[in-house]
Amino acid sequence: MLPMVIEQLEAIFHPRSIVVMGASKNQFAMGYRYLLHLKNYGYSGQIYPVTPHCSEVLGYKAYPALKDIPGPVDYVICCLPAAKVPDLLTECPKKQVKVVILFTGRLSETGQEDCAKLEEDILRRARELGIRLIGPNCMGMYYPKEGISFGYEFPTETGELGMFLQSGGAATEFVYYAALRGIRFSKVISYGNALDINETDFLDYFSKDDETKLIASYIEGVKDGRRFFNVLKKATHSKPVIVLKAGRSSAGVKQAASHTASMAGSQKTWETALKQAGAIQARTLEEMTDLVVSFYFLPPILGTRVGILGGGGGRSVLSADEWEEAGFNVVPLPEKIREEVKKTLPELWWDWIRNPVDLSIFPEKAFASNLSGKIMRMMAESPQFDLIIANLTVGGPFSSREFVAFIGSEVKDIIAISKSGKKPVAVVMNTGTLDTNDFDDLRWKCLAKQKAKLIAAKVPFYTNANQASNALIRLVNYYQRKGGTL
Amino acid sequence: MLPMVIEQLEAIFHPRSIVVMGASKNQFAMGYRYLLHLKNYGYSGQIYPVTPHCSEVLGYKAYPALKDIPGPVDYVICCLPAAKVPDLLTECPKKQVKVVILFTGRLSETGQEDCAKLEEDILRRARELGIRLIGPNCMGMYYPKEGISFGYEFPTETGELGMFLQSGGAATEFVYYAALRGIRFSKVISYGNALDINETDFLDYFSKDDETKLIASYIEGVKDGRRFFNVLKKATHSKPVIVLKAGRSSAGVKQAASHTASMAGSQKTWETALKQAGAIQARTLEEMTDLVVSFYFLPPILGTRVGILGGGGGRSVLSADEWEEAGFNVVPLPEKIREEVKKTLPELWWDWIRNPVDLSIFPEKAFASNLSGKIMRMMAESPQFDLIIANLTVGGPFSSREFVAFIGSEVKDIIAISKSGKKPVAVVMNTGTLDTNDFDDLRWKCLAKQKAKLIAAKVPFYTNANQASNALIRLVNYYQRKGGTL
Repeated sequence: MLPMVIEQLEAIFHPRSIVVMGASKNQFAMGYRYLLHLKNYGYSGQIYPVTPHCSEVLGYKAYPALKDIPGPVDYVICCLPAAKVPDLLTECPKKQVKVVILFTGRLSETGQEDCAKLEEDILRRARELGIRLIGPNCMGMYYPKEGISFGYEFPTETGELGMFLQSGGAATEFVYYAALRGIRFSKVISYGNALDINETDFLDYFSKDDETKLIASYIEGVKDGRRFFNVLKKATHSKPVIVLKAGRSSAGVKQAASHTASMAGSQKTWETALKQAGAIQARTLEEMTDLVVSFYFLPPILGTRVGILGGGGGRSVLSADEWEEAGFNVVPLPEKIREEVKKTLPELWWDWIRNPVDLSIFPEKAFASNLSGKIMRMMAESPQFDLIIANLTVGGPFSSREFVAFIGSEVKDIIAISKSGKKPVAVVMNTGTLDTNDFDDLRWKCLAKQKAKLIAAKVPFYTNANQASNALIRLVNYYQRKGGTL
Repeated sequence: MLPMVIEQLEAIFHPRSIVVMGASKNQFAMGYRYLLHLKNYGYSGQIYPVTPHCSEVLGYKAYPALKDIPGPVDYVICCLPAAKVPDLLTECPKKQVKVVILFTGRLSETGQEDCAKLEEDILRRARELGIRLIGPNCMGMYYPKEGISFGYEFPTETGELGMFLQSGGAATEFVYYAALRGIRFSKVISYGNALDINETDFLDYFSKDDETKLIASYIEGVKDGRRFFNVLKKATHSKPVIVLKAGRSSAGVKQAASHTASMAGSQKTWETALKQAGAIQARTLEEMTDLVVSFYFLPPILGTRVGILGGGGGRSVLSADEWEEAGFNVVPLPEKIREEVKKTLPELWWDWIRNPVDLSIFPEKAFASNLSGKIMRMMAESPQFDLIIANLTVGGPFSSREFVAFIGSEVKDIIAISKSGKKPVAVVMNTGTLDTNDFDDLRWKCLAKQKAKLIAAKVPFYTNANQASNALIRLVNYYQRKGGTL
């Protein structure tokens, strides 16, 4: 990418004024929603609705046409029908517009010849006039720092995950679910058909963006594979890049064509090229969420030796299986920790406790002296572990009141160890698929509360061991490959 | 298994009186909890606490020793320390006790020689006296119909899933999470070390139990592999049997030994034998939950042609990929349905809509006429689909109020089609990992409410497409293998 494009993108992210073309008082129209979001998220620049149908929208003075706006316009969000876009572009130079985001769709993705031709015309005209385009068929930008959003109730706080996604719906879903896991965003771009500025430009931008420490993307196809992989290779040197390539199956390839007019390409080629470029591959949005949570909250981890605590016997056996099957090494409890346990407990127990630490075999005395917290601290201090996993389970014979007290004390220990910075700690905890009447249940309410505490303390949590172990082994493999460069 | 053992088990499940040995007023002791559960779940037989330390527990008259109880005793729950079990057994014949459930642990699973020897003595004495044992190191029975439970706040309604699990903690976790998914239980047995009555006996029992239509199990090791697989082969002829074999990895094998003194056996042998016997294999408790949900709520499905609706473009591409990668066939929209859509919509759209049905491309007119519900009904009536999947996503440009209205109408359509019985329908819906403050959020509250509606209508739901497709392809494969026998 030319340095110019980076500058252009930087300017897009910091517009002094935003125009919504096709503004509307109809609350179901995007021409209303974009304006509402600018208002709600607190965008502080000039906001100009453009519509011939009314004189104000949401308290902002509306203008019948672009040319009627006083002063220059940095940024246009276009909600006009496709046929009106060429004329809009022709108007743009008079107002010094440099970038148009085309929410406008029904172009090449429809598979109709005339629509595809119109899309070509739009690109040709934009190039002639020196206007850059994002989209068409896209939702545009979510940039909490500037108060710009394409969705309702996204986090207003800013964060460090930068994303570019070819699907606005996938972007919206991802933001909602990742936000529940504690993720916050630097900038998110939904870029649709990628007619002009494309995935490679965004990738290059994010790799150089100081506000972004981690990049994640959803891609159905690329315009120029060679250029994309060259930029990707460089990007992965500066920060982790997670790529979800969609359009892998025969039905998925067809669906990608009708969604963003993408040529999905050979899945085998994609996998090989992504691997060679050092990207982290996700297969589903849910898997990408787990990967993002891992890279967002955890420091580099270079080894696979895991210490596991929490839950009863069955959970301990399953944890051992699942973490080893994912590629971790569930190492025996080190001699030094065994010696410490021996001091506290009689013969029967000290020799019986192992890794994973099965809390259900602890004698009462061990609970009274918080032996499990002590073992977790010893694991954190031991050079024989690379990572600690705490299972928070609803198993056990507890009443919900006892459960609340027990889990609360476990979470305190976990947070203390995480804050000490001695060892990476992650939590496996299934908060359950709740009915509204479960919202009053002490047990589920407790998990919801403890989840919030873990997130506030920046401790990553996962719904189950399978998801946790498969995301984390890829984090370990990633940093192991980077090896000496750390 | 001898028919006698089946009769003995039937008697265990219908005791006229229950004794809790080691009864206690200490609410943290199992000798208290078992009594509390009998009271709370409404067990209607005689309840006898036995303890030398007090004269009543929870309003039930307590007896100093087993022999002091007036009349015969069917069923003993033993919470005594291991060393006291042999004497208890000696007392049993005087009260005509036929079965003792040993919550008592710290036996062979400790790895200590004297504990293992004591366990052998217990078995020898029980055999001499003609007493059957469940456990030791187990939680015993949850049988809602009789008001018997080992856990707090399990469902009080009865259902048709029968389970035997070697881990009481795994049993408890499973009941809580599966209950949130709408599963209800006939009988659940936690059987620990399987010293006397073992996994094969329970399997045989459940396969012949009219209250059980589906069997699921968690096994760390079996006592007699040949007998187990012979019984399993017969059992899978009568109803689906799901087996989660734990203790697969090197660390898992060690953990299984210290949990239930199980010899975990070779994982490869297990997999082959389970497959040959026609069992459905689960690798994790979460996977078992998805399998149970599938077999519990859905009829036999014999083909892989899936029709998918709901969500936007990204979700549609990913759905196509995930369902095809799992082994389903995301077939093109049949000509007949296309013709119907053509009647409703102009050129641009009718030819653009495909399977998966991407709601984000629908023109407003299509929403007004509920075209998506209409397509779903046509899919249900078409012989070209074997299964319909509805995605309920939080994507899209909706405000939470619009979302609530939209999802509510989708769920109505889904339930109507499910009730029509024309085609199996399942829902993919991520209800999110909520904080307590999210409980007030319209969007998440709506998903929680709709989840309850789906469950009440017996529509299975899954958290994501990966879990759904991988569970359902195994349901299809299961019924395809059974083939002509249906």
